[in-house]
Amino acid sequence: MTKQEFDIKLKELRDKHKSLVTAENKVDESWYNGIFDRYENCVLTNEHIPLEWRYDLNYETNPNLLERIGVNAVFNSGALYHNGKFVLVPRIEGYDRKSYFAVCESENGIDNFKFRKYPVRLPVYGEEDTNVYDMRLTRHEDGWIYGLFCSERKDKSVNDTSTAEAKCGIVRTKDLESWERLPDLQSKYQQRNVLLHPEFVNRRYMLYTRPSDGFIDVGSGGGIGCAFVDDMANAVIGEDTIIEERKYHTIKETKNGGGAVPIKTDEGWLHIAHGVRNTAAGLRYVLYCFMTDLNAPTKVIYTPGGYFIAPIKNERVGDVSNVVFCNGAIEKDGQIYIYYASSDTRLHLAATTVDKMVDYCKNTPADNYTTGSSVEAICNLIDKNNKQCF
Amino acid sequence: MTKQEFDIKLKELRDKHKSLVTAENKVDESWYNGIFDRYENCVLTNEHIPLEWRYDLNYETNPNLLERIGVNAVFNSGALYHNGKFVLVPRIEGYDRKSYFAVCESENGIDNFKFRKYPVRLPVYGEEDTNVYDMRLTRHEDGWIYGLFCSERKDKSVNDTSTAEAKCGIVRTKDLESWERLPDLQSKYQQRNVLLHPEFVNRRYMLYTRPSDGFIDVGSGGGIGCAFVDDMANAVIGEDTIIEERKYHTIKETKNGGGAVPIKTDEGWLHIAHGVRNTAAGLRYVLYCFMTDLNAPTKVIYTPGGYFIAPIKNERVGDVSNVVFCNGAIEKDGQIYIYYASSDTRLHLAATTVDKMVDYCKNTPADNYTTGSSVEAICNLIDKNNKQCF
Repeated sequence: MTKQEFDIKLKELRDKHKSLVTAENKVDESWYNGIFDRYENCVLTNEHIPLEWRYDLNYETNPNLLERIGVNAVFNSGALYHNGKFVLVPRIEGYDRKSYFAVCESENGIDNFKFRKYPVRLPVYGEEDTNVYDMRLTRHEDGWIYGLFCSERKDKSVNDTSTAEAKCGIVRTKDLESWERLPDLQSKYQQRNVLLHPEFVNRRYMLYTRPSDGFIDVGSGGGIGCAFVDDMANAVIGEDTIIEERKYHTIKETKNGGGAVPIKTDEGWLHIAHGVRNTAAGLRYVLYCFMTDLNAPTKVIYTPGGYFIAPIKNERVGDVSNVVFCNGAIEKDGQIYIYYASSDTRLHLAATTVDKMVDYCKNTPADNYTTGSSVEAICNLIDKNNKQCF
Repeated sequence: MTKQEFDIKLKELRDKHKSLVTAENKVDESWYNGIFDRYENCVLTNEHIPLEWRYDLNYETNPNLLERIGVNAVFNSGALYHNGKFVLVPRIEGYDRKSYFAVCESENGIDNFKFRKYPVRLPVYGEEDTNVYDMRLTRHEDGWIYGLFCSERKDKSVNDTSTAEAKCGIVRTKDLESWERLPDLQSKYQQRNVLLHPEFVNRRYMLYTRPSDGFIDVGSGGGIGCAFVDDMANAVIGEDTIIEERKYHTIKETKNGGGAVPIKTDEGWLHIAHGVRNTAAGLRYVLYCFMTDLNAPTKVIYTPGGYFIAPIKNERVGDVSNVVFCNGAIEKDGQIYIYYASSDTRLHLAATTVDKMVDYCKNTPADNYTTGSSVEAICNLIDKNNKQCF
């Protein structure tokens, strides 16, 4: 490329990037179920990543304007309202399969998310992390913001290039800029999908866990558990107590796990979790909801049956197809912003309100585990509608 | 929502629903192979399900107009011509993964299918069904309409939340409104994809079976079998006789099974079955055809090679991608209406004629199991075409 061609191409890239990241995002009117709105545009994709992170923009050293460090996907994101802004900390995966975190902020939570200058330089605890992902951000009443994430290192006990050991890594920060790494959660099981409850429970820190026998399989265990620790700087747990079980022939038959940090409402803690079932074409991940008691957060009080969000249209296909996943949602002035990823590739926004979600959790019939009881629920609804003579 | 907003939104939902279910369906002219036509629109989807089955339409009890009981998918459908109408009994799957049946009818078999007031309240035999699906409807010469379907209940012999026991459930009816449940088929194997032949064979009922060792795997067995019983109210079978085997490196390598109830033609019984092979992205399901002897229906007489229908375009992706499946087709005045589902998500129509299907079955070269023989068949065709100097 001549310098002139380089400059023209670079301007084209910059213009295209700017119009992508500043595009106004609107509710997708083609989709309705009353419970939440889907937004038309992705909140984040690999193309949202700043050009400076990917290209050497110097003509002398990159005269062909090649991308030097590609980004494959931007997905599962922690979320927090902080200093008047909607903050996301997504999982960013490079072409090399290594994931990392970065902080981006928006005024409205809907569009115009802007990345800070650098991705997060995560401090190391013990053996260096091979990979990190899926950070849950909790503003705890102790004054810290905690980030709990999955850390993977190779399982050296087996001669298999694809077997890892999954642990819960822990960082804390006050400004989302300077991160203090604390010791990894110590558990007798492998742990993924660990969340920190935002309040003390009986003066202790409460963790939502997902104990597993092995790296991918939850084995005979699984379910969303809870465990308590006195000190996040020395988080050691014994046996997890399962509060939300897997169940035969449901959307959480094969696996389930916590998602967003629970949102406090007047009627209980709102959880947006994920459930997994197997199919002839691989695992299917959907989101589902439940609520726990305001004063006893280990007690599940509402369990609307079935899934809350499943992949539709373009969401269905990606690096890992047939997946939606959420590890971050923000409640602000009664509005709820749910950041969910599709097929391990890109990040979307579903928007709703506290009122609607509580209504949804309380009034959607619970799963009663047989086809007959599901049909009865439908027939009751039909009868109710017919009586009203609509 | 105010009452006024509620009313406006509800009218919008009703208008959208009406325009969907009453839309005229046309042949998709972009696709041709002469053997069958594809239709442009889906015959049924989750959005075709009446609003009264999904929404509480009362403003007092549902002021946010939330969907209360979501429908995830409408697919694999039994089919029958009854009282001057084309009747479908699809598998409807709720957000909770429970499937059930419902009856809908159309004047032309192509569009405007209308659901009856309620879904089918299926009577229970023995332990309550956790799930039911894939009903095959047979108008038998004994005067009854039989529905054979798969019934699943948890396999309690293993501590695994995803293992089920699959049996063939049986109902009969005269009007598709009042259903009598008969005892489940008794077999030493798990059974899926069981069909009832429409005529007596040597004064006995003839069943097409698909014996399996386990829940998902067909194990060492498999193939389309047949078995005979004296009384459908006491259907007990011994060893199945396999009439249509699985075969290495074919479209039915991993599994196969019966599809639509066979259609009687002057030249034999026409079968539309499914074949399954494994891929790196999971199982691939396609439809294939064969014909059996008019007087000895256990004897296969024509086996056109390869698949008859494979998923194309949007059919490829869904809850379980890379799948087409059929458990219902209607022959009426020489026309054949094949209702096939794609990717466990929605139902399509393929239309053809008895003449075309018999031609297809007789004149499509059979699979000869090597690449060389496939090439020979092509070269013979080319030579034949060249000799004709087209």
